[in-house]
Amino acid sequence: MVKRKGLLLVVSGPSGAGKGTICKAILDQNDQIKLSVSATTRKPRNGEVHGVNYFFLEKEEFTSMIAKGEFLEYAQIYDNFYGTPKSAIMETLDKGQDVILEIEMQGARQVKEVYPEGIFVFVLPPSLQELKNRIVGRGTETAEEIEKRFSCAFKEINQIDDYDYFIVNKDVEKSVKELEAIISSEKNKVTRYKNNIIEKFKEEL
Amino acid sequence: MVKRKGLLLVVSGPSGAGKGTICKAILDQNDQIKLSVSATTRKPRNGEVHGVNYFFLEKEEFTSMIAKGEFLEYAQIYDNFYGTPKSAIMETLDKGQDVILEIEMQGARQVKEVYPEGIFVFVLPPSLQELKNRIVGRGTETAEEIEKRFSCAFKEINQIDDYDYFIVNKDVEKSVKELEAIISSEKNKVTRYKNNIIEKFKEEL
Repeated sequence: MVKRKGLLLVVSGPSGAGKGTICKAILDQNDQIKLSVSATTRKPRNGEVHGVNYFFLEKEEFTSMIAKGEFLEYAQIYDNFYGTPKSAIMETLDKGQDVILEIEMQGARQVKEVYPEGIFVFVLPPSLQELKNRIVGRGTETAEEIEKRFSCAFKEINQIDDYDYFIVNKDVEKSVKELEAIISSEKNKVTRYKNNIIEKFKEEL
Repeated sequence: MVKRKGLLLVVSGPSGAGKGTICKAILDQNDQIKLSVSATTRKPRNGEVHGVNYFFLEKEEFTSMIAKGEFLEYAQIYDNFYGTPKSAIMETLDKGQDVILEIEMQGARQVKEVYPEGIFVFVLPPSLQELKNRIVGRGTETAEEIEKRFSCAFKEINQIDDYDYFIVNKDVEKSVKELEAIISSEKNKVTRYKNNIIEKFKEEL
């Protein structure tokens, strides 16, 4: 029987929509889903741990990894680099384990180009006003950064076409249930796993 | 805001795979999902009720409805006709309610032609041997009918390509959970409902 490959869930969306909170909650509740740890040159926020939330790298280290082709995707957002180291994800998927990748929208587009069999999930705020409230409430961005991010938000929402699924994040537990259902349903997709099924029945003939 | 149309779930698969049991269980557990009641010319099995399990019709009534174009699909399986009356389903979907349609595979193909936005789910037995055991155990078919059905089973399984999802029905509760996840995930599909989302955000600008 053909071994079932793991699913790569790419969770993205406008900054402040709550993709990080949803991903943290689903990982807490599902031991069998693994988190892809990204690399970044931005400074850690309160409580963020190197190797857990991100690999916090100096700009020189990051650009050296780009040159060696060691990222599945990378992007410059405002003044910082973000990227996804390639090899660890591919090894995990080959073992049959599912991986969640929480990234900015530029990065999601690059992953789709090189790994279109990923599942692309777009996390939306319930409203634009709510999005602004959340960014302000987080208190980690300067006033200038907040305005920059908010002015991009509607343009970003129009990029929903690049994604397979959307989640309107009103309530984290509801959003987690929706994401779990997406993962479950993808495991029942004919286009994804029919060879495993047909082979199994052929063995009986 | 655009009103969300209901989903039409078309559940099919080889006879004896357990599609009827799964549909009954999911309907028992979910008040908001409606069952499409099919029409048939076959005789009622023990406990089956007219208007609940099927509309049991005489052959003359059935062919008259065919002539008037009143079926979403119809098929002749062995010596009997099966069909799905069109108007009730369309009214329910327009109200935003989901409908489950449990039908034979010939019928599923016809529904796909006229209603491709349906969700097509293929229910499989865990093995061909288990399929045979179930048909025999049901005790409602003659020996000749059992052989006829079993010899079609592998050919039928190869028709999995006509479907969006498959469910390997080992355990009814697990199958119901998988079907519920399919319904949930389809409500988060960008291609299906993105207009509802984009309109909502435009209203805020």
